[in-house]
Amino acid sequence: MSSIAEPWRRLTGRNKVVEFVDMCLRGAAQVMLQNNPLTGLLILIAIGVGAGLAGAPRLVGGAIVGVAVGTVTALLLRADADSVRQGLFGFSPLLTGIGVLLFLRGGALLWLLVVFGAAATTITTLALTPVTRTWGLLPFTFPFVLTTWAVLMGAYQFAAVTVATPGRPALPGTTHVAPASPVADVVPGMIEGIAQVYLIPSAVAGAIIVLALAVNSLRAALFAIIGTVVATLVAIWYEAGASAVDAGLWDFNAVLTAIALGAVSYRPTLAAILYTLFGIIATVFVQAALTTVLEPLAIPTLTAPFVITTWLFLLGKRHFGPDRPAPAAAR
Amino acid sequence: MSSIAEPWRRLTGRNKVVEFVDMCLRGAAQVMLQNNPLTGLLILIAIGVGAGLAGAPRLVGGAIVGVAVGTVTALLLRADADSVRQGLFGFSPLLTGIGVLLFLRGGALLWLLVVFGAAATTITTLALTPVTRTWGLLPFTFPFVLTTWAVLMGAYQFAAVTVATPGRPALPGTTHVAPASPVADVVPGMIEGIAQVYLIPSAVAGAIIVLALAVNSLRAALFAIIGTVVATLVAIWYEAGASAVDAGLWDFNAVLTAIALGAVSYRPTLAAILYTLFGIIATVFVQAALTTVLEPLAIPTLTAPFVITTWLFLLGKRHFGPDRPAPAAAR
Amino acid sequence: MSSIAEPWRRLTGRNKVVEFVDMCLRGAAQVMLQNNPLTGLLILIAIGVGAGLAGAPRLVGGAIVGVAVGTVTALLLRADADSVRQGLFGFSPLLTGIGVLLFLRGGALLWLLVVFGAAATTITTLALTPVTRTWGLLPFTFPFVLTTWAVLMGAYQFAAVTVATPGRPALPGTTHVAPASPVADVVPGMIEGIAQVYLIPSAVAGAIIVLALAVNSLRAALFAIIGTVVATLVAIWYEAGASAVDAGLWDFNAVLTAIALGAVSYRPTLAAILYTLFGIIATVFVQAALTTVLEPLAIPTLTAPFVITTWLFLLGKRHFGPDRPAPAAAR
Repeated sequence: MSSIAEPWRRLTGRNKVVEFVDMCLRGAAQVMLQNNPLTGLLILIAIGVGAGLAGAPRLVGGAIVGVAVGTVTALLLRADADSVRQGLFGFSPLLTGIGVLLFLRGGALLWLLVVFGAAATTITTLALTPVTRTWGLLPFTFPFVLTTWAVLMGAYQFAAVTVATPGRPALPGTTHVAPASPVADVVPGMIEGIAQVYLIPSAVAGAIIVLALAVNSLRAALFAIIGTVVATLVAIWYEAGASAVDAGLWDFNAVLTAIALGAVSYRPTLAAILYTLFGIIATVFVQAALTTVLEPLAIPTLTAPFVITTWLFLLGKRHFGPDRPAPAAAR
Repeated sequence: MSSIAEPWRRLTGRNKVVEFVDMCLRGAAQVMLQNNPLTGLLILIAIGVGAGLAGAPRLVGGAIVGVAVGTVTALLLRADADSVRQGLFGFSPLLTGIGVLLFLRGGALLWLLVVFGAAATTITTLALTPVTRTWGLLPFTFPFVLTTWAVLMGAYQFAAVTVATPGRPALPGTTHVAPASPVADVVPGMIEGIAQVYLIPSAVAGAIIVLALAVNSLRAALFAIIGTVVATLVAIWYEAGASAVDAGLWDFNAVLTAIALGAVSYRPTLAAILYTLFGIIATVFVQAALTTVLEPLAIPTLTAPFVITTWLFLLGKRHFGPDRPAPAAAR
Repeated sequence: MSSIAEPWRRLTGRNKVVEFVDMCLRGAAQVMLQNNPLTGLLILIAIGVGAGLAGAPRLVGGAIVGVAVGTVTALLLRADADSVRQGLFGFSPLLTGIGVLLFLRGGALLWLLVVFGAAATTITTLALTPVTRTWGLLPFTFPFVLTTWAVLMGAYQFAAVTVATPGRPALPGTTHVAPASPVADVVPGMIEGIAQVYLIPSAVAGAIIVLALAVNSLRAALFAIIGTVVATLVAIWYEAGASAVDAGLWDFNAVLTAIALGAVSYRPTLAAILYTLFGIIATVFVQAALTTVLEPLAIPTLTAPFVITTWLFLLGKRHFGPDRPAPAAAR
């Protein structure tokens, strides 16, 4: 890899445009807590391929506009230069860009919402950073969650855009869970679940993302797979709706929790691995609870279950083993 | 002005009753972040005129009882004397007094709720102050929002009082947004929107409040107008319901954000003005989102959108320009 | 009492099993902020008697599994040894154990949720402790509330377990409050309300719990009674639903607020007693508000109203009188 990495590194130091592209590529990777432009490039390719296969190529446009606008906003507001360079102000806006285009319908005003939402996501990142730092935490993708929730929920009040989330607003228990139709695509669903981190419903994209993770960290790729497998098993065991299991919708939050706890925050001792497994299971239940809360609004949980569970599990256990004085949330 | 102000200032130093009246008048002005008894007097007049024109003179009674009870509670609990003197424990209870009377029906037990709610608002202000101070923020009107929400939501469980908010509990998307009926009263609606900060539906009251602001700060008056104009344009552009636009209901949160960011927290550089404009737009979307969240309960957003957006935008950018070391939230 | 207490104390120092039993008994008492194994034993007896009378003996099993699993989890995660010894990691999981069994139906997977929920409650306790400590507060029973809410809300998404809370998901105002049927069992309801702290609908259990409190602190027993009497009067006065009043459902949060403010945090000056009375009344309204918020999901408030109100009232007034420099939240 170093044969590619070294000239790229030198290029970013000399050329402002290349440096900006590097920030954006790292932003694409930072959704999964990876700081590597090649990982980010592969992930953007995965988004493009998956969006194309799903017949929604505009989503890759949303991703690119999102990460670019988010990073530019951070530069204009003179955010911490080192963080901007590592893509830490690009990853949440990238998801906002995809989410707004996926869950809303509308004309040019919709693209304005993408730009507006991406910039607002960066301001929310700047706002949540000092708050979470009080307890040694990071905002993770919560700025994306808050901003996209606001845009989607708000859209009900405006006739110029239309909410196109799956399902309609309903009280819980009225839309019947149908375990009768059995889960059919367990393994494709698990791989698709990894791509659902980026809101992309495609197993091909999921496979490319595993490769993208492996390029930077084999451990991250391994824990992504552990996360998606365990979450699917829990969902099947407690008889969640089959179509959601098939689409990997119970997996993507667990994938992120698995990477955050198992591959980034803790060294892989037995205790830490068991703790991570517990965190994965907890993520599935937190996602189920949030799904119920949001059902009357027909709004998706996005990655809130990952963020909430990971915050709790990081706060609940600062570190494992006697020899690790570094803060658990460092990455 | 000093010809009036100086004797008044001396009188407040000598007479306890006058001093208390001064605190309450400042409280009426502090809703809009102004520390000036004359501004407060004009605002109380605006509330009285507007409430009278709207056929609901009890609202001015709620305002006076609210600000008085809230201030007395702060004195009894020995809150920071300087803050009490500046009206900082009066402004949220004043709004609680109006809100409880406007949105509930009932007999003597309702007035008891006004007194009780105003006192609880002061305790909530005392509680939120150290929490928000952790990140250099102020509670703004959030104590009013929390207390009034609790009283209104709670009223559903008690037969002695009746919830009389506009609309009925409904799932979002079922009460159709009607952009067909075009917005009719754009300019009166914009001025009415300024009075809606005090929950008063009256353009005359709005005009008096602009005057009240100008007495203390031309910049505050100017940003109030900028806030109401921009918010109305955004609401019309995204095709919000015409009747709400006509009543200025999309404006009052944006008016407060505009004053807080543009006239109080930042010096008026170009960057700060653009940032304030972005904050005004964001306030409209946060208000739309909260409207959707609260629709199943038929509870109004009150000024929560202003508080949430202003917190985010103050945390997101501490100050503009290299030469302003003062904390952004100071007022 | 010392004739029993002294040998027990010596036994706990010598025998690991007895020490663990001691932690669990203290955990049962710590729900009510009491640190006394005899109080805990009497409370477990009250739960057993009440659960038996109510035809639901499994609830005492849930309590024992909950407190044991919660305490073991704390030991495994090497939580602060002193806190574990005082039962501070057992009381919330004990309630989770009862709550999951009371409000859900299901087979073996349900008992797995009890174990899982109890362990997750301990992790949540560990997570919330440093957060609340930022402002000199304790998590109280909030870890129980959050974890049990998550399990109950999540259960709607899984066919393997069924939500069996009272009522069905409904918009507020549609299930009519019926003050027509008058309150019948005022005094039994008040005593039952004390047992409802542990989710047990039994006046006999309530009477035993008052005794259990008196064994450790007469003041705590007295304030528990004050709490339940005042809350019932407020609920009757504002015409809450008669069946809930008869079942003591408006009392249990107020009982906890009364003990926390009146018997633990403040010395019993006149001002502190009036402040506690105000806190009790506020708890009833916060409970009413949360009931409305959760009505569309048919999820109970649990002890959230107690926690929220007590946090506000502790933050709102650190201490009464000039001679008490100790932090208000110490217990």
